[in-house]
Amino acid sequence: MEPVLLTPGPLTTTLRTKLAMLRDWGSWDADFIAVTARVRASLLKILHAESTHVVVPLQGSGTFSVEAAVATVVPRDGHVLVLDNGAYCKRAAKLAQMMGRRCTVMPFDEAQPVSAQALDEKLAGDAGITHVIAVHCETGAGVLNPLERIAEVCAARGRGLIVDAMSSFGALPIDAREVRFDALVAASGKCLEGVPGMGFVFLRKDILESCAGNSQSLAMDLHDQHTYMERTGQWRFTPPTHVVVALAEAIAQFEEEGGQPARLARYTRNWRTLVDGMARLGFMTFLDPSVQAPVIVTFHAPGDARYEFKAFYEAAKRRGFILYPGKLTQVETFRIGCIGAIGTTEMEQAVHAVELALQDLGIASGEPEI
Amino acid sequence: MEPVLLTPGPLTTTLRTKLAMLRDWGSWDADFIAVTARVRASLLKILHAESTHVVVPLQGSGTFSVEAAVATVVPRDGHVLVLDNGAYCKRAAKLAQMMGRRCTVMPFDEAQPVSAQALDEKLAGDAGITHVIAVHCETGAGVLNPLERIAEVCAARGRGLIVDAMSSFGALPIDAREVRFDALVAASGKCLEGVPGMGFVFLRKDILESCAGNSQSLAMDLHDQHTYMERTGQWRFTPPTHVVVALAEAIAQFEEEGGQPARLARYTRNWRTLVDGMARLGFMTFLDPSVQAPVIVTFHAPGDARYEFKAFYEAAKRRGFILYPGKLTQVETFRIGCIGAIGTTEMEQAVHAVELALQDLGIASGEPEI
Repeated sequence: MEPVLLTPGPLTTTLRTKLAMLRDWGSWDADFIAVTARVRASLLKILHAESTHVVVPLQGSGTFSVEAAVATVVPRDGHVLVLDNGAYCKRAAKLAQMMGRRCTVMPFDEAQPVSAQALDEKLAGDAGITHVIAVHCETGAGVLNPLERIAEVCAARGRGLIVDAMSSFGALPIDAREVRFDALVAASGKCLEGVPGMGFVFLRKDILESCAGNSQSLAMDLHDQHTYMERTGQWRFTPPTHVVVALAEAIAQFEEEGGQPARLARYTRNWRTLVDGMARLGFMTFLDPSVQAPVIVTFHAPGDARYEFKAFYEAAKRRGFILYPGKLTQVETFRIGCIGAIGTTEMEQAVHAVELALQDLGIASGEPEI
Repeated sequence: MEPVLLTPGPLTTTLRTKLAMLRDWGSWDADFIAVTARVRASLLKILHAESTHVVVPLQGSGTFSVEAAVATVVPRDGHVLVLDNGAYCKRAAKLAQMMGRRCTVMPFDEAQPVSAQALDEKLAGDAGITHVIAVHCETGAGVLNPLERIAEVCAARGRGLIVDAMSSFGALPIDAREVRFDALVAASGKCLEGVPGMGFVFLRKDILESCAGNSQSLAMDLHDQHTYMERTGQWRFTPPTHVVVALAEAIAQFEEEGGQPARLARYTRNWRTLVDGMARLGFMTFLDPSVQAPVIVTFHAPGDARYEFKAFYEAAKRRGFILYPGKLTQVETFRIGCIGAIGTTEMEQAVHAVELALQDLGIASGEPEI
């Protein structure tokens, strides 16, 4: 049996999505151009962004698209403020610094959402900050950040906003008619349940023109990618054709399922099943449920001295489930994703696999040492 | 019937290669780490580079890997010389300039190989040039450039060499024990006959250490990607898992076929079948056969006034073959690839499809107007 992935991408996709990859496509051909156009139109619709934004797909992992968004949107003499409550925030700060943009990091507790009020005070005191970078769902711990309030502050203060919505897009509601952002980034292999290999960036139409010439990277220049795509329908450089058609097929299933509300409902059921089941085994979540997104859950490691992540992971894998290591520096944790083409049945079985894994290790309870 | 791709990537792959994508892989899992390791070992073997180079895979299209090679290998105060006889050379110059490296372009006729002797004279007169960028097979027209002689000149003059071997790697012989280069770039979806979505860069071990800190891009930093991969076996950011396993399966078939010599022999038969057949229809190749790589062939457009590429393309497509537009600015041409999981049967049928396409357009002969 092939294992179920309980990881925040790559994740388990449907066979229908994967079967779409059993054909080769000429990237220059009208048939493939139509697939790209269909994907772009669907993505805009998910965000209700048809009249406010364009969407630009980009080859590579999600991080490539985050870097491209920053490189394209922030002028070379811009100054970005990163709201940092986790690993992906730190990564965004690092890539902004590396490309030579002035960058200020505003640290927050990784167990808590970032504070829109603190952001407002910071912006009030520093008129030089041109752009804010925020991660919507920070999968380092699994925290949901207050995107709407962050966007309100940025709009009121007249600053640009770049959103990393990698692991929220498609599952959590975001309405571009009400939430104002310059760029929002996500990827194929997350809540849309495609395969990994491409990202996409929503760019606000009003700022498009001002983006020309910002990027120091040819590959990451979303303005150039967009201009070329508008003119020709094609990607500038060879697209990952199989990944694109798999995403198109995944989006078709997303729409059939009932779009974002249905996906959120399924993921929420997955999350509830997981957390309830794990609690019965004695496990404790790292986050307070009120700040938890139903995307990926961080659990404290069991306090039992016999616990060792690698052995625990292997034991769960033998039972058909791939867990995910923790990404926190201070506390020993592991993570279990709730996203992908899985439902409560898989989550119940996952809890059962964890129970058997504990037994393998001779551990009586998942209770942490706190 | 699904069309056969006669394009230089994406190209037609075997069903076996595509079937490898019918599974999801955890990117953190030992099984996937083993796939990555096997791919890297196989790539080094193809180039006989086990003792001289490392190979670093990178998400994205081949151009992403070219940009990453330049960003990683050339110091920020370096000075690159681009040997330019086509569109891909110009693209390399553009990305080097955009990232802020000093860049000199040395123009050559796009119908001829670049001259190693002219390079030698140029380097003799300009001690400031630190690196040379050369394209092995320039698919703009299809010219094979003299890689061995270029490498000799660079070695003798003590300059670094970055080779874009995108459409030659795996088909044309390159022996890293005899040809000295700092970086050599190729991609999954070319002569190895994988699907598109990742590239890889061979880096000379001797220069690895000096590459740290050169890149202004996080995503494109091959030194960082390599260091992380050596330590963990993993990719730094989400890999295109399905593309990677398809490449592993494509490489297995490459090895079973007999490796590079067998692939070159098949592509040479394809090329010969194509060119002979097209000549019977009156078509003329743009290049002299002596400078032609058996990868992609540029043909002059027919001189008949009824010829129009789009209609010709559509007519050939109806017969099951996807042709490729020309990329030359001065002359009207079109291109037909000889690479991919195809043999002389497909090439004979392709010529037949072209013959029927000419008939559709009411054109008696492919003879150009010269």
